[in-house]
Amino acid sequence: MKLAIEYLKKQAAFYKNQLLKDTVPFWFPRSIDKEHGGFLLMRDADGTLIDDDKAVWIQGRATWLLSTLYNTIEPKKEWLDGAKSGIDFLNNHCFDTDGQMFFHVTRDGKPIRKRRYYFSETFAVIANAAYAKASGDESAAEKARYLFGKCIEYATTPGILPAKFTNTRPAKGIGVPMIMMNTAQQLRETIGDPRCDEWIDKWIAEIERDFVKDDIKCVMEQVAPDGSIIDHIDGRTLNPGHAIEGAWFILHEAKYRNNDPKLIALGCKMLDFMWERGWDKEHGGILYFRDVYDEPVQEYWQDMKFWWPHNEVIIATLLAYVMTGDEKYMQWHKMVHDYAYEKFHDKENGEWYGYLHRDGTIAQTAKGNMYKGPFHLPRQEWYCLQILNEYLDKA
Amino acid sequence: MKLAIEYLKKQAAFYKNQLLKDTVPFWFPRSIDKEHGGFLLMRDADGTLIDDDKAVWIQGRATWLLSTLYNTIEPKKEWLDGAKSGIDFLNNHCFDTDGQMFFHVTRDGKPIRKRRYYFSETFAVIANAAYAKASGDESAAEKARYLFGKCIEYATTPGILPAKFTNTRPAKGIGVPMIMMNTAQQLRETIGDPRCDEWIDKWIAEIERDFVKDDIKCVMEQVAPDGSIIDHIDGRTLNPGHAIEGAWFILHEAKYRNNDPKLIALGCKMLDFMWERGWDKEHGGILYFRDVYDEPVQEYWQDMKFWWPHNEVIIATLLAYVMTGDEKYMQWHKMVHDYAYEKFHDKENGEWYGYLHRDGTIAQTAKGNMYKGPFHLPRQEWYCLQILNEYLDKA
Repeated sequence: MKLAIEYLKKQAAFYKNQLLKDTVPFWFPRSIDKEHGGFLLMRDADGTLIDDDKAVWIQGRATWLLSTLYNTIEPKKEWLDGAKSGIDFLNNHCFDTDGQMFFHVTRDGKPIRKRRYYFSETFAVIANAAYAKASGDESAAEKARYLFGKCIEYATTPGILPAKFTNTRPAKGIGVPMIMMNTAQQLRETIGDPRCDEWIDKWIAEIERDFVKDDIKCVMEQVAPDGSIIDHIDGRTLNPGHAIEGAWFILHEAKYRNNDPKLIALGCKMLDFMWERGWDKEHGGILYFRDVYDEPVQEYWQDMKFWWPHNEVIIATLLAYVMTGDEKYMQWHKMVHDYAYEKFHDKENGEWYGYLHRDGTIAQTAKGNMYKGPFHLPRQEWYCLQILNEYLDKA
Repeated sequence: MKLAIEYLKKQAAFYKNQLLKDTVPFWFPRSIDKEHGGFLLMRDADGTLIDDDKAVWIQGRATWLLSTLYNTIEPKKEWLDGAKSGIDFLNNHCFDTDGQMFFHVTRDGKPIRKRRYYFSETFAVIANAAYAKASGDESAAEKARYLFGKCIEYATTPGILPAKFTNTRPAKGIGVPMIMMNTAQQLRETIGDPRCDEWIDKWIAEIERDFVKDDIKCVMEQVAPDGSIIDHIDGRTLNPGHAIEGAWFILHEAKYRNNDPKLIALGCKMLDFMWERGWDKEHGGILYFRDVYDEPVQEYWQDMKFWWPHNEVIIATLLAYVMTGDEKYMQWHKMVHDYAYEKFHDKENGEWYGYLHRDGTIAQTAKGNMYKGPFHLPRQEWYCLQILNEYLDKA
């Protein structure tokens, strides 16, 4: 026990240092676009800008990060000013006339691409909610609540957004209840919203009922509307790091609800199932895709190691440990932490590489692109710091 | 010279043997779906079926292959019967009510997905054209000509198909003139069509004017409508194997036009530029994506080795050699041939793996999926055999 406390204290100091001395300084202040607002985030390993376009997901996520640092670490004016720049860019340039958000815009905010999903909107909810808390700006709070309502509408109204597939073989993904649950948690814990608890209950129930398969010890990424497994290549494809992200959203909910034992059991079960399927016993790290029956996965890059699943597994294992005291989770946390900070972390320039080959060598050097920016890594370092501080305070 | 002739004779025998004793028997007759028509092609390394869905591109390509074998190798009844099964499935199940084709259907032909492209249609053109020649079926010939007209309409009418991107930063890909040129060549050389030569001229002129950049020795994958380079991540991304496929389509056209020296020079230039950018000097093989200015490519799997670029480069280098006699091309042909048949070829079960890591190890074992089936490899073995037979006859 004393050894564990020493280790966790060391981890808390490590995450704090990484977050504030390594990860955040890689991105800020240089990425704030003083000319057009928002952030210039598509950067090579050394920080050189490789594209001045703006990915709307990442504009929202970076705004959330700066606001959250302001709310929870230190009320630094530069963080609040940066967040305001993000909020203004989102409001002024990232909405289409039909109310839907774009996915990809130019530096000065002209639309390049809109997609059939509403992830831009979910990230705009958490950006506005965290910014409203930081700034006291009531219009941002209203925007967050309004967009959360839109997301619920998109999630629950069949046919409201154009479909990618026909109705021949209907399917649903775990991504929707997961992202909506986390969005609701953020909204609730910054500015509050009376709708959140009830919706979170529904999404957790859906995940447990339709996606978690006790008989084959698996969390499915996609299922038929009734929860049955679709025995085709896409339907069989698992994303262990994503399912484990879902596990920690549920553990977070358990903690919020005074350590609800049923939710702890559900989150730990999801983690157990998908650690077993995702951890690469040969090279270490989390494999990106697996097939539920170990058949070949359509995606040829299925055995690569991406940065973000490692961030999610670092959080999930630490949270599972502090909530259960089960030494297995401490051990897993060390394994994934040591692998990730050895292989992904760029000791020279700060931040992490995004994409490794299965053997741990670097496949692509960029730190930022359409999908990677200041989010999963700083969120992990920030969240781990929060739970460790809380745990060590009580210990 | 004598040594070269000996080598080329050996190659001709090798390709014939591979095609008829290794590649074709992997797929046929077992893949012909006697119950629903069409082909069951999504198979693991040993031939086990991993999905009974049907990818419309591949249904058309397999029909083209069987018809072409019948037309050029031997009039085997089983090849013609197989081709008929493919034609019937395409006609009965792969067209939507608006005349556009689907991309992905179930085994019994129910639609799963339609896409914003007309590659299903181009493969249906070559399938119908080759089948019409094999069978004498006039309705297939009519269908081929009708669909070729539809493809020209899709290619030349802005806005006729839904757009993936806004008009903020218009772009065009080399894929359209390339696939249309090859479709026209196939149509012309099976059943004939008076439109082909003129269109082929236009597409070659467009490639030369807008995509081939002498100053930086490069063939672009995507450019602005006026041919200028779009200096953003997507606009900078090169696909060397694809550009080299375009090079051999042009060399093929040069051969058809009595060895037109201007077209030979253009095809060889494209091959020279993109060999230099695509050949992996460290591990051998053709890298999938490159950045025109060597910045990081967005696609994290950019340094993988895919089967089909190797098929295209094997053809292009051999064709360049027999048309120019330049020893450099013979040397390149040997390099890519030896690499590909060592790394991709499955000596135990026949056919090739589709996806290797950069270092040449296998990333995914499937022989067939939504994108891979009996096309690039058998086309390469068949086409190389044709040009070698023709060359050796004259030598």
